[in-house]
Amino acid sequence: MSLTQEFDTIAAISTPLGEGAISIVRLSGTDALIIADRIFRGKTLKNVASHTINYGHIFENDTLIDEVMVSVMRAPKTFTREDIVEINTHGGIAVTQEILQVLLRNGARLAEPGEFTKRAFLNGRMDLAQAESVMDLIRAKTDKAANIAVKQLDGSLSHLINSIRREILEALAQVEVNIDYPEYDDVETMTSQMLVEKTAHFEQLLRGLLATSRRGKILREGLKTAIIGRPNVGKSSLLNQLLREEKAIVTDIAGTTRDSITEFANIGGVPLELIDTAGIRETDDVVEAIGVERSKKALSEADLVLLVLNASEQLTKNDEELLELSANTNRIILLNKTDLSEKIEIDKLPVDFIRISALKNENLDAVEQRINSIFFAGEIEAADGNVLSNARHVALVEKALSALTEANNSLYQGLPVDLVQVDITRCWQLLGEITGEAAPDELITQLFSQFCLGK
Amino acid sequence: MSLTQEFDTIAAISTPLGEGAISIVRLSGTDALIIADRIFRGKTLKNVASHTINYGHIFENDTLIDEVMVSVMRAPKTFTREDIVEINTHGGIAVTQEILQVLLRNGARLAEPGEFTKRAFLNGRMDLAQAESVMDLIRAKTDKAANIAVKQLDGSLSHLINSIRREILEALAQVEVNIDYPEYDDVETMTSQMLVEKTAHFEQLLRGLLATSRRGKILREGLKTAIIGRPNVGKSSLLNQLLREEKAIVTDIAGTTRDSITEFANIGGVPLELIDTAGIRETDDVVEAIGVERSKKALSEADLVLLVLNASEQLTKNDEELLELSANTNRIILLNKTDLSEKIEIDKLPVDFIRISALKNENLDAVEQRINSIFFAGEIEAADGNVLSNARHVALVEKALSALTEANNSLYQGLPVDLVQVDITRCWQLLGEITGEAAPDELITQLFSQFCLGK
Repeated sequence: MSLTQEFDTIAAISTPLGEGAISIVRLSGTDALIIADRIFRGKTLKNVASHTINYGHIFENDTLIDEVMVSVMRAPKTFTREDIVEINTHGGIAVTQEILQVLLRNGARLAEPGEFTKRAFLNGRMDLAQAESVMDLIRAKTDKAANIAVKQLDGSLSHLINSIRREILEALAQVEVNIDYPEYDDVETMTSQMLVEKTAHFEQLLRGLLATSRRGKILREGLKTAIIGRPNVGKSSLLNQLLREEKAIVTDIAGTTRDSITEFANIGGVPLELIDTAGIRETDDVVEAIGVERSKKALSEADLVLLVLNASEQLTKNDEELLELSANTNRIILLNKTDLSEKIEIDKLPVDFIRISALKNENLDAVEQRINSIFFAGEIEAADGNVLSNARHVALVEKALSALTEANNSLYQGLPVDLVQVDITRCWQLLGEITGEAAPDELITQLFSQFCLGK
Repeated sequence: MSLTQEFDTIAAISTPLGEGAISIVRLSGTDALIIADRIFRGKTLKNVASHTINYGHIFENDTLIDEVMVSVMRAPKTFTREDIVEINTHGGIAVTQEILQVLLRNGARLAEPGEFTKRAFLNGRMDLAQAESVMDLIRAKTDKAANIAVKQLDGSLSHLINSIRREILEALAQVEVNIDYPEYDDVETMTSQMLVEKTAHFEQLLRGLLATSRRGKILREGLKTAIIGRPNVGKSSLLNQLLREEKAIVTDIAGTTRDSITEFANIGGVPLELIDTAGIRETDDVVEAIGVERSKKALSEADLVLLVLNASEQLTKNDEELLELSANTNRIILLNKTDLSEKIEIDKLPVDFIRISALKNENLDAVEQRINSIFFAGEIEAADGNVLSNARHVALVEKALSALTEANNSLYQGLPVDLVQVDITRCWQLLGEITGEAAPDELITQLFSQFCLGK
């Protein structure tokens, strides 16, 4: 991307498209105020103070488009560190799109996905890990996931990575000093000894960070969850109960086709991505054979399986099939309908079932606890709040760690210190890709292209 | 609703819920600033100037929730005429809902649907027709529909209604004067003559307004459109072409289930609500019999039928069935695949077909013109921009008109003037329900309850 493109004035709709009370069309760049003034009737925006909100109307030629509030924020104290104008419209899809079109006809360029945040990064307002956390925050499916993202946005992960990199750099500098002054006898031994200690220390730091990553990934991306069970055991009631929770989320990622809707239930902050909910809604009326086929498919994709049995009836052949099918999965057996008298043969079941009543919303807390014990057993939340959640960061820390392992091997084999140096330098560089200090341009372009429009 | 409730501090998410770059949580009421200060770390908001934007962080106890920009707008120059605080978050569903919850835990009450606009109405910032146009603007499916709504929001319809009501009131006052001074001989005749002229004049005004309502209703609500045709004539290509248009809209009204998704295509400003698009997407692979059954159902619901035929093949029995089935509908026959050589028997078709290539996006303009000529033939856009689009307004103008007709009948039958007076007064009152000057409380409650959350 050329320099001129980077600093032209970009525009995009920054609120989700839909029928809402307010929509925002955002402008950023040198000409933001000039372009806004062309279509705004009210105060002359280029004369108003920074960080003010201004009432007026958007016109194209003499056609009134909307009554609006316009926020003016002048560089450098803005998200992009450029002049920003935000037009708050009355909401709705048609009028918001029209205002964007009017801006484009008056000199703005349509922003690429993530281009506002990319400018924030390029202008030094935030590093790469912080920029990525912006998107993680937007995509967070539960408050716990959001809390991890907002801490990273605040720079706590970057701070930790930077401090580890600083220590690595100091060790490397020490090696240089030792190599440059070979007049001391035992310099080689001294240096090796120092590096053995240092790499052990760095390994410990990185392993500590990686230990949080499973939790981080689950909180960020959710658990693919299959609800299985024969017809009429109450799968739909359970599904509805899970989705009825205040914070259940239904998202339509692509925004264009029916197929892309994903439903997330929020169980104690863990997002459960429910697989094949259409299937669940249908199977209660469908012949059992299809139910089993569907279940097999769902099971093969699931991180977590909720097997629902009807406690008020004896086990059927179909139940037993599903018990067997799901035996080697992360499964929670739910004896549903505890509001009725119990007829199920407990002695034929594995011991770790949970009694619930989906209808009466009883004992679902126990399900939450079980999920925690299955997925987070022994994993303590990092005390400093630093959880590695982003897959790219996890991969880089893993690579950095294996560079350290190689350094260690070389040290134990008594190889020359400058070979070890190469591995440790690689570790330092890999960690730098997390914060973007050592990130190639293509990576940056590719990362921001995954952002949503308007951010 | 009691007076205290009306002026407590309400909060709601004012942007559509979804993964977007910015979300807004809005507070309105006497304690808006006090409540916001409880959770905001940055400047003390109760001390900042009105209409300013303030950078800071939202905390609950010592947990960081988000980095935010907070807009402060003090009464009375606000949407509700109360103090308003808008918290602009980084967007996303989880964090936005969390901030709303924090506000509710700190003294705000969850706003009812439309409650912000209801306060704007009750505090005299706008009349009822203007308040309704806010919602029409949000729901507008095309720019034309939005333009009608924004003119009404600007008060142009209210202005017209008020001026008609003023004229009616003057006529009624004149009648009173004449009745109170019966010393003149021909007062009864004079009054009747005056009323005949006046009612004719009022009738003309109301009929002029009603003449715009068909256009208004279509632009506001859209045309239910069925795309029919046998398999492989290119229905899906046509559908995709229509939806690929820059302004096509896919809405998910309820936001919770898959079934409620409605797809609108925008043809020259006319929103086409596409019926049974799932059917269209499927039928190309489905046996013909099901196709015909589906078509029958779609035809029975449609305002407009697009019958697609394959120009590169001869007519089949199935084509002929569909031609016959749709003969008495508002139908446009499309000969698709004009990019291939034509084999269809033109002489067997009605004369008014249109040749298109859905694949190559050719000649779809002609479809737009045909839709205009079918639905808006002879209807001229109101020069003053006053289009009656809201079904409630249309019904009230129709009732007001029939009150005038009754007044006229009474006049011709020589009935006493005070009977005529009753009908004309009713006309005046009915028109007052449009602007809310004569609207009962239940109506107001019911109207605002149809608004979206956060408006």
